[in-house]
Amino acid sequence: MSKIRIGINGYGNLGKGVEKNISKYEDLELVAIFTRRDPESLKVLSNTPVVNIKDIENWKDKIDVMIMCGGSATDLPKQVPEMSKMFNTIDSFDTHAKIPEYFKTVNENAVNSNKTSIISIGWDPGMFSLLRLYDNCILPEGKTYTFWGKGVSQGHSDAIRRIDGVKNAIQYTIPIDEAINRVRNGENPELTTGEKHLRECFVVAEENADKTRIEKEIKTMPNYFDEYHTEVHFITEEKLKLSHSKMPHGGFVIHSGKTGENNHIIEYSLKLDSNPEFTSSVLLTFARAAYKMNKMGQVGAKTIFDIPPIMLSNKTSEEIIKQLL
Amino acid sequence: MSKIRIGINGYGNLGKGVEKNISKYEDLELVAIFTRRDPESLKVLSNTPVVNIKDIENWKDKIDVMIMCGGSATDLPKQVPEMSKMFNTIDSFDTHAKIPEYFKTVNENAVNSNKTSIISIGWDPGMFSLLRLYDNCILPEGKTYTFWGKGVSQGHSDAIRRIDGVKNAIQYTIPIDEAINRVRNGENPELTTGEKHLRECFVVAEENADKTRIEKEIKTMPNYFDEYHTEVHFITEEKLKLSHSKMPHGGFVIHSGKTGENNHIIEYSLKLDSNPEFTSSVLLTFARAAYKMNKMGQVGAKTIFDIPPIMLSNKTSEEIIKQLL
Repeated sequence: MSKIRIGINGYGNLGKGVEKNISKYEDLELVAIFTRRDPESLKVLSNTPVVNIKDIENWKDKIDVMIMCGGSATDLPKQVPEMSKMFNTIDSFDTHAKIPEYFKTVNENAVNSNKTSIISIGWDPGMFSLLRLYDNCILPEGKTYTFWGKGVSQGHSDAIRRIDGVKNAIQYTIPIDEAINRVRNGENPELTTGEKHLRECFVVAEENADKTRIEKEIKTMPNYFDEYHTEVHFITEEKLKLSHSKMPHGGFVIHSGKTGENNHIIEYSLKLDSNPEFTSSVLLTFARAAYKMNKMGQVGAKTIFDIPPIMLSNKTSEEIIKQLL
Repeated sequence: MSKIRIGINGYGNLGKGVEKNISKYEDLELVAIFTRRDPESLKVLSNTPVVNIKDIENWKDKIDVMIMCGGSATDLPKQVPEMSKMFNTIDSFDTHAKIPEYFKTVNENAVNSNKTSIISIGWDPGMFSLLRLYDNCILPEGKTYTFWGKGVSQGHSDAIRRIDGVKNAIQYTIPIDEAINRVRNGENPELTTGEKHLRECFVVAEENADKTRIEKEIKTMPNYFDEYHTEVHFITEEKLKLSHSKMPHGGFVIHSGKTGENNHIIEYSLKLDSNPEFTSSVLLTFARAAYKMNKMGQVGAKTIFDIPPIMLSNKTSEEIIKQLL
């Protein structure tokens, strides 16, 4: 049987994760890696051809699903609508507020080109969204809570790095145990963002920088830190590299709901050693679904809500019923 | 907008749960309750018409989805294939080993009658099966563990009740914390059934019965207890009624998987105050999907794996994307 031919578009942490993981999917094969950089300059892990993105049209008939590995801020909103004119695509666009508009644009292009584009796949948006849907449908009288972490927030780390006198920084978002336990106990509390998470910062200051000022600037930064309990630790560059270069993440979706007088708790949690590697695994799984749905004529933009779970597997319905039901 | 017309077939704990819960689903309405008993003798909670099952054919055009609330041992394997000739159905058939054969029979009848029959819905089989599928697809290099409890096992309670000198009994299946923690730590242990769960029994003995013999008979009972650590407590009938008449249950599906050298833990858990009420909520939710899929021409037997998650909601795709993605 011929394999599903996969392309990687963008070679950062996510693209590398896809490249590293694809061998675990026996029905998928990596055909090419596309980059905006000079292909010669790119050192990849496998011996996959590296192609400049300007030549991507030549690959129209050689790729079944293009896995879009750019960032949500500027890459994906530009690239995916273009790519969906030529390829089935899968992406992890995660700017929640802009998803409806993004969906519309991608959908128009994908419908016109008879392609299938699954958007906003990963763990949040992605698996967490899915659990929120199941939870709310099954226990409509209830409340859903999402907690994130412990994990690195790229946005918050960047915000610290922009402060004068900061050489480097890593910020961890940490869910507050007490809040989680109140939810698990069925108390249905009203929780502010600051009551759900705290923020721990590891900062490398420049020589002679005023640490007191830096700490104050972090803790009072509007939107990012001012509403949270924030801890700041100054450490050396070596220590930062040694102890904080992994990218762990995770979180919890907890639904507390009622039937009559009885209470029920549904909890889904992730504890990930590597956020980009796990996300790349989710993308690969849904790439399989994009291919299958396209074969069945289900074109246009799709979200995780539209995909029959069986489409994610390469096994037959009979095998799955026997092994997993 | 007209509502989806629901019938309840079988009025035990599950049927009562459906009746109690349906008001939470604004697009569903309960039309009739069907029973093998004398309808006059049945006291129901609402003022829904109660109909003898022999007259069910008259309701062919008055019910959109029939929720089958009988037991898996003898009721469902007989009733569902018959009902699927006349109605869209939903059931909680849970005899794992017999599901493939059951699926086949129901499928033939439902296809012939242009009906949609969703089988084996609930939490296990059901939501737990679904999580096992997502987990295994997303992290193919990994291992899935299912733990049940703390909860009442009807089968084990019945087995104790059949022992000479036993008046009444309740058996709780309890997952062993140490085993769960080893799985959560990513150790991927090989666990025997006895290492995963212990069994706690509350027994009411008849007057002058030999408690030592009863305890020994329980603990050495093949298949049911001999491979487990089993605790037996003798209590009074009053105490049993007072402290053990609720039907809590729950469990855990934990998947421990790898990408490269990195480990990831996905955990889904349920803590249910009432097993039948929660299950009835799941049945109601999937009844909505059965109706929608039938309207779209997707007939035959279906499992939880076949159902696009969006079918479970009565909201539009736009609303769901905005609120939950």
